[in-house]
Amino acid sequence: MSQPEFDVIAIGNAIVDVMAPCSDALVEELGMVRGGMTLIDTERAHSLYDAMGPAREISGGSAANTLAGLAALGAKCAFIGQVADDQLGEVFAHDIRAGGISFGTAPRAGDPPTARCLIFVTPDGQRTMNTFLGASQYLPAAALDEAAIRAASVLYLEGYLWDPEEPRAAMRRAIAAAKDAGRKVAFTLSDAFVIERHGADFRAMIETGEIDILFANHVELAALTGHDDFDKGLAELAPKVPVLVVTRSEKGAVAVTGGERFEVPAEPIDQVVDTTGAGDLFAAGFLFGHVRGWKVADCLTTGAICAAEIISHYGARPEADLKALVAARIG
Amino acid sequence: MSQPEFDVIAIGNAIVDVMAPCSDALVEELGMVRGGMTLIDTERAHSLYDAMGPAREISGGSAANTLAGLAALGAKCAFIGQVADDQLGEVFAHDIRAGGISFGTAPRAGDPPTARCLIFVTPDGQRTMNTFLGASQYLPAAALDEAAIRAASVLYLEGYLWDPEEPRAAMRRAIAAAKDAGRKVAFTLSDAFVIERHGADFRAMIETGEIDILFANHVELAALTGHDDFDKGLAELAPKVPVLVVTRSEKGAVAVTGGERFEVPAEPIDQVVDTTGAGDLFAAGFLFGHVRGWKVADCLTTGAICAAEIISHYGARPEADLKALVAARIG
Repeated sequence: MSQPEFDVIAIGNAIVDVMAPCSDALVEELGMVRGGMTLIDTERAHSLYDAMGPAREISGGSAANTLAGLAALGAKCAFIGQVADDQLGEVFAHDIRAGGISFGTAPRAGDPPTARCLIFVTPDGQRTMNTFLGASQYLPAAALDEAAIRAASVLYLEGYLWDPEEPRAAMRRAIAAAKDAGRKVAFTLSDAFVIERHGADFRAMIETGEIDILFANHVELAALTGHDDFDKGLAELAPKVPVLVVTRSEKGAVAVTGGERFEVPAEPIDQVVDTTGAGDLFAAGFLFGHVRGWKVADCLTTGAICAAEIISHYGARPEADLKALVAARIG
Repeated sequence: MSQPEFDVIAIGNAIVDVMAPCSDALVEELGMVRGGMTLIDTERAHSLYDAMGPAREISGGSAANTLAGLAALGAKCAFIGQVADDQLGEVFAHDIRAGGISFGTAPRAGDPPTARCLIFVTPDGQRTMNTFLGASQYLPAAALDEAAIRAASVLYLEGYLWDPEEPRAAMRRAIAAAKDAGRKVAFTLSDAFVIERHGADFRAMIETGEIDILFANHVELAALTGHDDFDKGLAELAPKVPVLVVTRSEKGAVAVTGGERFEVPAEPIDQVVDTTGAGDLFAAGFLFGHVRGWKVADCLTTGAICAAEIISHYGARPEADLKALVAARIG
């Protein structure tokens, strides 16, 4: 096994977030699932955008956010994801490359346009996401840079992208390539709806040992295991994956590895402005520590620091100097 | 003269700001004029964007920012400006309409794309702007909604837009329409470079009484009058315009009207994050008070409150509840 060229390579949705504050009443009125992620079609995208207040555009996408955090911490990263050949595609590509991340997937010509996520942020900081997948769902297996995948310590996959057919096939091929090269595969379950549709796939991948590091939140843990009780769910899943990381919002996070359980509280924070990307950045912090061979407790703390930074401002890409924030805490 | 339908109608650049923090060294390295506004062509836009860090997109444009502030304060506003038929054009149109501002200018088909301003924000909060005017410079006189102009208490014009030929002709026609309907014309000088190129036009318009309310900062006052001494410049210009408003950054602002001079200090602020839009929002606050018939001192204070809000965060569109901020101070 040659020296890895990248710490982490990720396959994920290539999305630009369109974000605006909104009232609790508007979430209700528009019939949105508060705090959730809903896939929307063109028509719904237009009607929701019309109902949205003045917004800002910030690159997003779950795995891409995680890479942005990893790169900010100092990791060497690469991204694979599909944008269209349009202005928002240029914005996404610029932002990810400007973060120091290698991104070589060619833009897709013609319709549909680049994916966008309409994010309504209520006064409590909770985000309600409506995703128009656009070009992102057409990532073809041919777009994979298998040499790069074989040259990365960790292949990180976003559960959201397991839903559309072409990217799912691409991700299966990527897993095979990573495994063949002796690399680790990390997977984030992303959302309960993905588990509802593809839970059987995920359980099979876990049983066959294809997933080395699994990220979930407490809702996804329950959806995957069928146990509403957190500890029961954890006890069932943990023996099946080498590293299991479960985030619990304001209750902090838990990791189980080698039969040992580690826990970290949530970082104190003045004001939760926008929770978009909290899980993504937790994963960034944890993975960074993991690829650097840090103690599990330090990996968790790093995840908590990154998550706290991201929810203190609008958008799911880091603004503060994550490296300095972490260095101040972890020797 | 019929009851006005709008408080303020503005003609301005229809621009999306692309903003990123940057180091002082990068401003130097890229050969940018720190704190200034420079017009750039396609090639320079590409090279500067390549050098820029991960960014966010927020609608901008000087006069459009002023309207966003006015509308947030409760004024009825309309905007005239040219976007292209592209994604950033949709973003601009959405944001201005979502702010409650009437915007009917049809998007322009084909190249060039919608205007964008690449804004580099240094650690002191100073913004250095690089504007690619794109479609914005092709606003034709035919795009004017003369009925709306005649139905607005104030026609507000952005000096930046005096530079390109077509919008200049459109603005001259708009002034004639507003004057013919017995409305007021407000003008912001925008930047010293505009005065260098078009100072003769501006001085002529002032002499002939076409401008009722003139906004400038201290640098523009000096450029227009040729007096480096603030008080000398003010003394020369003030008798020629019914209302003269001059902002002085951290020194606050001055208004002279009816031979009387009024002054307001800058509002105290915890941290200057990004000065983009400070002048635009000062104008918004002042104009709001003016159209409501407030005392001059209160108009100035409202301007200072709005300017302080805008420099406390990224972007030139208000985020806090301006109406509440002003109501807390002005009875």
